[in-house]
Amino acid sequence: MASRASSTGRATLDDVARMTGVSTITVSRAFRHPEKVSEDLRRRIQQAADDIGYVRNRAASALASNRSMNIAVLVPSLSNSVFVETVTGIEKVFREHGYQMLMGVNHYSAEEEEALVRAYLAFAPDGMLLTGFNHRDSTRRLLEQAGIPIVHMMELSDREGAYSVGFSQEAAAQAMTEHLLSRGRQRIAFVASQLDPRTLARNRGYRDAIIRAGLYESHRELLVPDQSSVALGAVLLKRLLEQAPDTDAIFFCNDDLAQGALFECLRQGIAVPNRLAVAGFNDLAISECTVPSLTTIKTPRYEVGVEAARMLLALIEGETVPRKVIDLGFQLRAREST
Amino acid sequence: MASRASSTGRATLDDVARMTGVSTITVSRAFRHPEKVSEDLRRRIQQAADDIGYVRNRAASALASNRSMNIAVLVPSLSNSVFVETVTGIEKVFREHGYQMLMGVNHYSAEEEEALVRAYLAFAPDGMLLTGFNHRDSTRRLLEQAGIPIVHMMELSDREGAYSVGFSQEAAAQAMTEHLLSRGRQRIAFVASQLDPRTLARNRGYRDAIIRAGLYESHRELLVPDQSSVALGAVLLKRLLEQAPDTDAIFFCNDDLAQGALFECLRQGIAVPNRLAVAGFNDLAISECTVPSLTTIKTPRYEVGVEAARMLLALIEGETVPRKVIDLGFQLRAREST
Repeated sequence: MASRASSTGRATLDDVARMTGVSTITVSRAFRHPEKVSEDLRRRIQQAADDIGYVRNRAASALASNRSMNIAVLVPSLSNSVFVETVTGIEKVFREHGYQMLMGVNHYSAEEEEALVRAYLAFAPDGMLLTGFNHRDSTRRLLEQAGIPIVHMMELSDREGAYSVGFSQEAAAQAMTEHLLSRGRQRIAFVASQLDPRTLARNRGYRDAIIRAGLYESHRELLVPDQSSVALGAVLLKRLLEQAPDTDAIFFCNDDLAQGALFECLRQGIAVPNRLAVAGFNDLAISECTVPSLTTIKTPRYEVGVEAARMLLALIEGETVPRKVIDLGFQLRAREST
Repeated sequence: MASRASSTGRATLDDVARMTGVSTITVSRAFRHPEKVSEDLRRRIQQAADDIGYVRNRAASALASNRSMNIAVLVPSLSNSVFVETVTGIEKVFREHGYQMLMGVNHYSAEEEEALVRAYLAFAPDGMLLTGFNHRDSTRRLLEQAGIPIVHMMELSDREGAYSVGFSQEAAAQAMTEHLLSRGRQRIAFVASQLDPRTLARNRGYRDAIIRAGLYESHRELLVPDQSSVALGAVLLKRLLEQAPDTDAIFFCNDDLAQGALFECLRQGIAVPNRLAVAGFNDLAISECTVPSLTTIKTPRYEVGVEAARMLLALIEGETVPRKVIDLGFQLRAREST
């Protein structure tokens, strides 16, 4: 049996070459440019590498290619599945292309975002994916100085030079409000927490539609800055029904709140949808299982991750990107709760 | 106004030194060993660095310290909040200590885990956090050859030389089964999906307790390999009640399944807990909000992340770790569903 590793105890490129009976340069080429060697040889080299536990030194490869092979990704939260699915899509694309994802969670804070941008720039990322457009000016300056491609996720922008992949939060909220109107509801409330830019865009969409219908009443809007949760949904339902008892439909800015409201209706014996229609936003997995099942907006969050990652890779590779703004749309899922 | 950046367009250490009026070596020392310079000077240097957008080159620092400052973390899933909370705890500790987390999701597959270990070893991580002990032999060999510290999360092991932070899955499942027995239930079922090692350990805990009570009946166990989801909970409830209609309590291996079963009971008019007690495992946020609220086991998943990260950092720093196995325990949350 051939010697399994060098004197350091770690298998080297030379070890793989010796095992395969080819030169070290050939082994190196097989790893860097697999298309330049035969498939048979490539397989033998990989087998030998597997057998002796050889692992390529990615840092060294990165140095040689003048790329770090790191890409930084910043999302506001992982506490429900929305951004988890986006990150899953991103990670799939990056992994296929040999890039490593550095992921940061900024808890909906522009300050935390800047701290993460600063920390991650030290890893010399080849590009960055950010959520939305709500950045501090100093963060923008840092990013401009870094001179790396940036793609924004979830929201769309027609700002000069900005790349974005997402969908129109306003249009989706308009569609939901019009759905409730089409069900004959006249006193439709909007309830939101965690007032990030996407939540506020949904509020604008609600207002546009409800004002157009001539049915806007300010006491049917309830906006609080607290972090969203299922438990908060029950609290906000009670507050809204105190300040506007004759409300016949509530559009919650996300499914977490709407689910909490559904559970509270069940506890209080409020008939949904007969007495009160309830709608959410995001279409979390649980929303089709609740009793009654929840009407909501299905957002393309996995697809946003995939398309944003692809756009960023194209920019890193210096390719031309046909469209700077990709609108992936949304779907209204009408269920029992409306 | 001083020149803002070097000819490459990127601010350098020299630029920061010039702005502050001290030597480059002093600036470097202030970044590497902040305790060795006065707080006033440190603040002036940081301010200058912020003003001109200077970012330390982490890769260069890592090279100098012979550390990559990368730590790889592998978890099976991020699709519910269990491992998200663990990762949040890990990330907090790493960030405080200047380490970068490379995170991989192996979808409960030992094959995918090995592919990730191989990919991440190429980043020369200083250590690795793995979930559980169910690794392929070839993965173990790769890790041994890498010669870096490893800490295992969630499960405990008395295997020689293995470091682990978690709690006893068996003991927690025993406690839940005993809780159902204490409520006077005699025909207690166990329903599980996604049969990873922790799920199977919970099954053992259930069996231990139910056999000890002299109440074990094999047709009250339903184990399927499918991925867990709320929707699957409803399906498995129906199957179990077909094969064992007189069951008076069901212990589901996780909260997702138990929530789906609660919703299905509501649809079918099965009174919980009077006709059927329902229990879960994990205490997801939604479980205290459902109607009825769900009895479950609160697992210390955030704390597992924090303590495992601390143990790993101590090993990386060459410190003595007082205990190789840290058992963080669990809590039974008795609620309306039992």
